[in-house]
Amino acid sequence: MPICRIVGPTGQPEYAIYREDAVCPLRHLTDQPPFEAELFSFDWTSIGDPDAIPADRWSDQAQWLPPVPPPEKIICIGLNYRDHAIETGAEIPTEPVVFGKFSSALIGPGQAIELPAISKRVDYEAELVVVIGREAKNVTADRAMDFVFGYSCGHDVSARDWQKGRPGGQWLLGKTFDTFAPLGPCIATKSELPDPSNLRVRMELNGHTVQDSTTAQLIFDIPSLIAHLSQFVTLKPGDLIYTGTPPGVGDAKDPPVYLKPGDRCSVIIEGIGTLTNPCR
Amino acid sequence: MPICRIVGPTGQPEYAIYREDAVCPLRHLTDQPPFEAELFSFDWTSIGDPDAIPADRWSDQAQWLPPVPPPEKIICIGLNYRDHAIETGAEIPTEPVVFGKFSSALIGPGQAIELPAISKRVDYEAELVVVIGREAKNVTADRAMDFVFGYSCGHDVSARDWQKGRPGGQWLLGKTFDTFAPLGPCIATKSELPDPSNLRVRMELNGHTVQDSTTAQLIFDIPSLIAHLSQFVTLKPGDLIYTGTPPGVGDAKDPPVYLKPGDRCSVIIEGIGTLTNPCR
Repeated sequence: MPICRIVGPTGQPEYAIYREDAVCPLRHLTDQPPFEAELFSFDWTSIGDPDAIPADRWSDQAQWLPPVPPPEKIICIGLNYRDHAIETGAEIPTEPVVFGKFSSALIGPGQAIELPAISKRVDYEAELVVVIGREAKNVTADRAMDFVFGYSCGHDVSARDWQKGRPGGQWLLGKTFDTFAPLGPCIATKSELPDPSNLRVRMELNGHTVQDSTTAQLIFDIPSLIAHLSQFVTLKPGDLIYTGTPPGVGDAKDPPVYLKPGDRCSVIIEGIGTLTNPCR
Repeated sequence: MPICRIVGPTGQPEYAIYREDAVCPLRHLTDQPPFEAELFSFDWTSIGDPDAIPADRWSDQAQWLPPVPPPEKIICIGLNYRDHAIETGAEIPTEPVVFGKFSSALIGPGQAIELPAISKRVDYEAELVVVIGREAKNVTADRAMDFVFGYSCGHDVSARDWQKGRPGGQWLLGKTFDTFAPLGPCIATKSELPDPSNLRVRMELNGHTVQDSTTAQLIFDIPSLIAHLSQFVTLKPGDLIYTGTPPGVGDAKDPPVYLKPGDRCSVIIEGIGTLTNPCR
């Protein structure tokens, strides 16, 4: 069941079923729709077949939110596609390169990526995002998928001039500007996307494909990432793992290409949907 | 007013006034004690003079919590004492070195620092922590102190073998193991600690002083840090800034000293109090 999160009639977030660009709020389908964190404990099978929902319950007018409430952790993996590591001039990592974003960076579909005045090198990165569904600590790779709730499209917006070449070498500031973590349009739950190991991942910039690869190219696959991370932190429902980006980032082009006001970025992942955000 | 947060009689967090190792729950002092995030909007002056609270309302039995609810952001500054930068062999930074911890790392006074099986080099770092009280974006240094709620003692526990020398060079994993962000015992509000620019900061390991400096040695002072960070992210009430550690860390000693089960670490900051955590 593809799940999205929108602004409800009272101004509070509510969950909805997602279908291309239409939504059906859960309150049209059940007397007890889930609130915020209940997303992960709600029995989604009780909703039945989305294809059986009458046409008049769908709407193409929605004020979109990120599909999860603000998570405790946004964990990001760097250099996780072999070709992307090569294009940046970095060595192929022998273990996952892990950095974070603060949840203040999260925005939903259609919300604007704010290009900061203090950066001249803001770049795009299309990424498959894993949404954790159950608390996980010290889990092994062969059990790791039990802790996954589903998958979404993520955009790891990156100010290269603050990410690289700074004292101390930490990427955080360049990655966590407000609005630098678009997510959506929906969560494809594990039951509808049982195998995320070979999904096409693309970035379109103003309608032109600039990144195009598949998750089969991941150096560290999803079970390995969950197992690795759960040795350090307790993963919790709603935590997000941005799994890394394929080749084709603007910073590696000759001449380089950076985001500018008016640009439109679309992350398109097979089996999930299209996440589009304008820049301003 | 020194404010702490403890487990109340119903098992929910409640706020209390702090005095050395005794506490007076706010429900003994007002009919409308603040809940969780109300900490920052509550009128603390309505409580009156803590010295006038009758002796029988104080208790030395409390189950301690971190003095703030889980924050959106734990922002940490690296290499921010000149002598510490030198002892680690790093260059004096020309701008703040910024990394993060996830709020899953936060623990309160007395709670155990869990030494992870996958690290052999866990080190201590005493730090002054700034607690943000009002939303701040793009603020200038001369107005930055308006956005501070108060100060606390923090311990930036650091697994050196995961912080340094890893592919990609990111410090996050070594800094954000569960339990690696002790905070407390209280928040000294700005009104009682109006000038944080020359406070003695110490770490005692098993009763022996191993770090001893003052915040006068900070390379980037608190107003500069707030102004800098607010260019990147919207600072929100409850956000924490761990401002960096003085010289004397275990990793820089010859031979190096690392934390082991049974060790007791106490961060002692003038005008705030003592934050003690055992290791196990």
